[in-house]
Amino acid sequence: MDAVWNRGDVDAVDRFVADEYTIHSDPGDPWDGATLTAAGFKERLIASRGPFPDLHFDISETVAEDDRVAIAWTMRGTQTGPLGPLPPTGRRFAVQGITVYYFRGGRITGHRQVVDRLSVARQLGIAGAGGPPAAH
Amino acid sequence: MDAVWNRGDVDAVDRFVADEYTIHSDPGDPWDGATLTAAGFKERLIASRGPFPDLHFDISETVAEDDRVAIAWTMRGTQTGPLGPLPPTGRRFAVQGITVYYFRGGRITGHRQVVDRLSVARQLGIAGAGGPPAAH
Repeated sequence: MDAVWNRGDVDAVDRFVADEYTIHSDPGDPWDGATLTAAGFKERLIASRGPFPDLHFDISETVAEDDRVAIAWTMRGTQTGPLGPLPPTGRRFAVQGITVYYFRGGRITGHRQVVDRLSVARQLGIAGAGGPPAAH
Repeated sequence: MDAVWNRGDVDAVDRFVADEYTIHSDPGDPWDGATLTAAGFKERLIASRGPFPDLHFDISETVAEDDRVAIAWTMRGTQTGPLGPLPPTGRRFAVQGITVYYFRGGRITGHRQVVDRLSVARQLGIAGAGGPPAAH
């Protein structure tokens, strides 16, 4: 979370993310249901952080069992880049989510995730529009 | 989940829910941050199921560690009762959420939860209004 999502370190993806990464369920995420290569994951990382270069996750809780870890988090960011048709607004948001990560051989093979997208939509002023961005 | 939330069995609350139940974090839930007595929990159960008497949760995944269990679920229901100012619409919805439950002495002492409320709001046609209902 720190290297890849908080610092946006694209090269770190290869250390933490498996060669095939499956987004089992992530409602509203543009890649919901997809299986990504490392290159695809890097594209997702760059696209997701583009509108919010200061994107930051704080983890409030972890629940681990065998090769799966659930994490509860708060994501904060400022929309200083374009978000689809929306020009930069400078609006800040904070949103909560919970993710289940799947591990194999020390790397993450995918996730299942729920994000309180309604909060993001309201804070960015797009509740009636196309909706909020992907999380992670 | 089956007895309390799917069947709406108010008497079952005493078997599964501790005398004090804390909603640590549940964005958009009317009881977010509250600590409930058993009577308060029962009120919450009745109020939450009122608009959706057929409310049903299907659990897709569990991650357990010590006295905490994360569950990923899909909640489905039909709005056949009034929902705040909204009259019964007969609209059906399906929404995903992830909950972390806290256990002590065989009963649940509270939860932390994220629900994809934007999906509910859109499916019930209230995305621009007061928002969706509580989950559980």
